[in-house]
Amino acid sequence: MLIRDVGEQGLLKIIQPYCLPNTIGDDGAIVHPPPGCELVVTTDVLVDGVHFSDRTTKAFDVGWRAVAANLSDLAAMGATPLGITVGLSLPPTLPVIWLEGLYRGMQVCLERYGTGIIGGDLTRSSVATVAITALGAVRADRVIARANARVDDAIVVTGYHGDSHGGLKLLLDANVPVELTADRQALIDAHQRPLPRLDVLPILDRLSTSASQKFAIGGMDSSDGLADAIVQICQASGVGAVLNRSSLPISPSLARIFPDTALESALYGGEDFELVLCMPTEIGLELVEKIGGGAAIIGKIVRSSDIILIDDLTNNPPIYLDRLSGFQHFSID
Amino acid sequence: MLIRDVGEQGLLKIIQPYCLPNTIGDDGAIVHPPPGCELVVTTDVLVDGVHFSDRTTKAFDVGWRAVAANLSDLAAMGATPLGITVGLSLPPTLPVIWLEGLYRGMQVCLERYGTGIIGGDLTRSSVATVAITALGAVRADRVIARANARVDDAIVVTGYHGDSHGGLKLLLDANVPVELTADRQALIDAHQRPLPRLDVLPILDRLSTSASQKFAIGGMDSSDGLADAIVQICQASGVGAVLNRSSLPISPSLARIFPDTALESALYGGEDFELVLCMPTEIGLELVEKIGGGAAIIGKIVRSSDIILIDDLTNNPPIYLDRLSGFQHFSID
Repeated sequence: MLIRDVGEQGLLKIIQPYCLPNTIGDDGAIVHPPPGCELVVTTDVLVDGVHFSDRTTKAFDVGWRAVAANLSDLAAMGATPLGITVGLSLPPTLPVIWLEGLYRGMQVCLERYGTGIIGGDLTRSSVATVAITALGAVRADRVIARANARVDDAIVVTGYHGDSHGGLKLLLDANVPVELTADRQALIDAHQRPLPRLDVLPILDRLSTSASQKFAIGGMDSSDGLADAIVQICQASGVGAVLNRSSLPISPSLARIFPDTALESALYGGEDFELVLCMPTEIGLELVEKIGGGAAIIGKIVRSSDIILIDDLTNNPPIYLDRLSGFQHFSID
Repeated sequence: MLIRDVGEQGLLKIIQPYCLPNTIGDDGAIVHPPPGCELVVTTDVLVDGVHFSDRTTKAFDVGWRAVAANLSDLAAMGATPLGITVGLSLPPTLPVIWLEGLYRGMQVCLERYGTGIIGGDLTRSSVATVAITALGAVRADRVIARANARVDDAIVVTGYHGDSHGGLKLLLDANVPVELTADRQALIDAHQRPLPRLDVLPILDRLSTSASQKFAIGGMDSSDGLADAIVQICQASGVGAVLNRSSLPISPSLARIFPDTALESALYGGEDFELVLCMPTEIGLELVEKIGGGAAIIGKIVRSSDIILIDDLTNNPPIYLDRLSGFQHFSID
């Protein structure tokens, strides 16, 4: 059965079970922001053939990843989710089962984080396009912003980097020896079912509450790559950074399957959806201990405007991350 | 100059002047909802070749209409706007001047209503797609909902219906006699630059405040046509309606240029972006007087589930609006 066989009312009936109650009906959805909170809003658009393809991504995973990317943007601002809207454009020749898979993927990811779909729009197009807007709430004094990094802050990452890029490479071609099957699956999972780090927010909240002095947190997520995140934070904050290659968290799976390119994937691969956070060192140490896994302090913020990765594992010269040519996501993402 | 010649950073620089300050930078935008208000969120997607085309709509007007449609959805809920996000997908071969026209159209319409662009996303696609999410605020006791219509309520429309459809027909073909040039332009303006009726909200607010008894307002906008709005409201409220043909507000311009099809355009044309509101008759009378223009009471809500248009101008039999075949917007809009 194809989209064109169902009609608008039929499509709404198919979608409704995946949405929060009372979502479809009025011209807009009502949201109850918690008192005293700021509202955070973020939008991401995924286009068939640009951000996903049948080759690497099932409909369920398209839905999951679209939601994960938006929830990660909320986490990057320190905000917990209130709900999302879904603006969907679909070719009339698309199978209905694809639509159901997409909504199931969105719903399962949203439920994991205690939220859901609160509204949307549905229209036809020659190319499948998923435009998601996520709403979240954050206390004004807990907002995480790129411009909040301060000299001497520790730079914390909440987990391993490069796995998503490794997973994509495996999906696109590489065979791996049978003894690495579990590693292979771990990387593919990282690519197909990324987990936005909303779990870090309550930990941060407790650390902020119990800290002897108030501090602001600088940061963003690493969806466009770890190097990009560091550069963006430093430029927004008017500071520099010194990173140590030996501190960059690279997962054992990535190191085993792609020993030669793991560092490159970690720095530039993107789509790991971890958080990159700048804060006083003693808070950063506590945070890393509480998160566990691949969380690590990877360097510190410095007064100079240089952003340097020191290769403390070899005798290679340092890499100046800020001197790389600009990322041109419009052409490549 | 084409989109592909500019790169992402260049495109962001082009867009920035059309957005509210501090819009581009962090992963999300911060919104300050007024204390004690509900938040309303609504999403609309416009696709090139489906919702607009070079033949009938310049880039400026695509932007204007996209914003107007979303602000109208807010007005339909009783909410005043807090800002919009824009998820944009563009072909790399599109001229940059089109992008600028689009943003100028959005900005001019938003400024007219005291709001602006607070965030978004930009990506490439084979088809231009504009996904807008609008945020608004409304006091909990002022929410307008489709399910709020009550038996004996007056049905108020805030202005003329059918002009937008007439304007579209003129753009697509019809020539009109030179003495009707001003009428022609009025209809085309109605199609290209619709005005969401946010101006009605403060009037409703004053009437609600000064009313001797509390009342809820049932309603929605008429973006999918006046007949559709009446049917949606009646079905959501579990009531029926009786309308009088002589009361339907049809503009003199529409009546002069399209005397034979004006009624059809008024009932089914859509995209007039007026409000259809149900409320106690004495309030409705005051409201119509204060709005002026084409505002009118067009009928009343009844206990029966029939939705009847009585032709009090001729001897034609009544039209049962609820027995029309369902609208299939997925295929036609």
